[in-house]
Amino acid sequence: MTDATPIQQTARPHDRLADALADDMAAVGRLISTRMASEHAPRIPEVTAHLVGAGGKRVRPLLTVAAARLCGYEGDDHIKLAATVEFIHTATLLHDDVVDESAQRRGRPTANLLWDNQSSVLVGDYLFARSFQLMVECGSLRILDILSGAAATIAEGEVLQLTAARNLATTEETYLKVVRGKTAALFQAACESGAVIAGASEDHVSALAEFGDAMGISFQIMDDWLDYGGAGDAIGKDLGDDFREGKLTLPVIRALTRSNSEERVFWRDALERGRADDLDRARAILERHGTLEETRAEALIWRDRAKAALHRLPASDLRDMLGDLADYVVVRAL
Amino acid sequence: MTDATPIQQTARPHDRLADALADDMAAVGRLISTRMASEHAPRIPEVTAHLVGAGGKRVRPLLTVAAARLCGYEGDDHIKLAATVEFIHTATLLHDDVVDESAQRRGRPTANLLWDNQSSVLVGDYLFARSFQLMVECGSLRILDILSGAAATIAEGEVLQLTAARNLATTEETYLKVVRGKTAALFQAACESGAVIAGASEDHVSALAEFGDAMGISFQIMDDWLDYGGAGDAIGKDLGDDFREGKLTLPVIRALTRSNSEERVFWRDALERGRADDLDRARAILERHGTLEETRAEALIWRDRAKAALHRLPASDLRDMLGDLADYVVVRAL
Repeated sequence: MTDATPIQQTARPHDRLADALADDMAAVGRLISTRMASEHAPRIPEVTAHLVGAGGKRVRPLLTVAAARLCGYEGDDHIKLAATVEFIHTATLLHDDVVDESAQRRGRPTANLLWDNQSSVLVGDYLFARSFQLMVECGSLRILDILSGAAATIAEGEVLQLTAARNLATTEETYLKVVRGKTAALFQAACESGAVIAGASEDHVSALAEFGDAMGISFQIMDDWLDYGGAGDAIGKDLGDDFREGKLTLPVIRALTRSNSEERVFWRDALERGRADDLDRARAILERHGTLEETRAEALIWRDRAKAALHRLPASDLRDMLGDLADYVVVRAL
Repeated sequence: MTDATPIQQTARPHDRLADALADDMAAVGRLISTRMASEHAPRIPEVTAHLVGAGGKRVRPLLTVAAARLCGYEGDDHIKLAATVEFIHTATLLHDDVVDESAQRRGRPTANLLWDNQSSVLVGDYLFARSFQLMVECGSLRILDILSGAAATIAEGEVLQLTAARNLATTEETYLKVVRGKTAALFQAACESGAVIAGASEDHVSALAEFGDAMGISFQIMDDWLDYGGAGDAIGKDLGDDFREGKLTLPVIRALTRSNSEERVFWRDALERGRADDLDRARAILERHGTLEETRAEALIWRDRAKAALHRLPASDLRDMLGDLADYVVVRAL
């Protein structure tokens, strides 16, 4: 568990950021609870409660609030934007559930599956709609453009991931589009919209947009690394999930280009034909071609780009905390 | 088939409207095709092609275009709004598929089901996002407010329908909320946004909003009537779908209040416990309490409200065609 020490050392930045912005984040929490409620359909808060409850780290709204304050914002529309970003994130989680639940159907009662699917899809739609209502209240067409564009990129990335799964011909270019869609697009929009609502200069807006994009990419690349290189219990997810789901992530895409015919047969059986029953063999092949180490290095490159973007902003405690957060996400998943 | 003659007589208004607005609707069709495309995820147009293809009657975009022109609009942003409305409608259809496919899973290959669910959910999300991008391009915060509000009402109504299903205590008030969510809200937003983009007077905007709401309600009430009172082959759907799915629609809600204990046992078994194997018995009970006739009368009341709202608008061919359309939708489902 070589990650143990750095995890301990870097666990603080996220919490320090949350402490520094505690009042704003409390307001975000209150707004989320208010807007989640539905007089017509009481089931909605039931379904979303466990998702938007205190459990979540709320990294995305934290980015929005931090970006706005970092740019000297004194108003309170950034609270609405932060709630918007969290609603979009929660809606995508709910819709991912449908896919996951479908996959895990075996042995589960149909009614239950059916119910979950219905609730997940429809409540997710409700949160999407509520998020757009919140954006509209902010009255900034530019922010509406940023966030509706991010929503489209997210959906596109998810569909792309669907079509790329089990396809050994997936390129690094496609992988990067998927990564942007599933993670970086919302990180970027969260930061960018915070800067825009603050009326920041174009250079500061683009600096925060680049920061969100690069940090989101480094975070997702590390998440994909952890699926093969991490220690299951430490990351709160099973190792090899991506492997079993036939997802073509960076370590695999690179290893495939260097695999011999025997190894290619293994990948085809495991990823294309779904016979992913030998994770150790997969990890051994990745190790042999050194692609786990390369993947980690790639995440660090994006981490460095994120921090470089931050240096185009005036020095401040919040800026330093965002830099520490960028260091933190490449050590373990948020 | 007592409906045959009126159907023939009234089949024209919708086509006449489409003919009168042929150029606009052709532009809507082109914009839908363009914006549906995704350079990153080619699967998206594949999935949506059969839904947004020439097959659909495109009633909702037709309402938007008609409302705008009726109010003397000379610009072309109404084309974007019409495409927006059709995208929202298509997205809800895709998400309804998830529910339906889950219900029909018996005998279908899991992979197929899984794939359909994933594609339906994610491509629906993509269309939602694209629809908001189109709205934003129109640059009207008021229209964004109207359409994002409609999207929330739609999702709320769907969730409400979910919780009301198989619940014999469902009231007419709840039923009306479901009807507004699943149908009237988008009809209303389609008409209202067309009037707003045209810069119409507040009275004309609210007249068209009321027209869309009332016509949508009369349309949905007739659709619910048809499920028990129609002739399956004529409406292109199986009779008794709502009955088998345990949906509490107006004819059933009213019959329940008048049912004797023996009939209540029948409804409980059929709707609550899902033993809906005797549609003839259900229809006989509805006939006995006269609620099919009452439901039809209720649809006509809403049809009259729709036409009354139209009379607050200046006389024109388009206005008359919308009035004929209101007559048409209570004769059969669109």
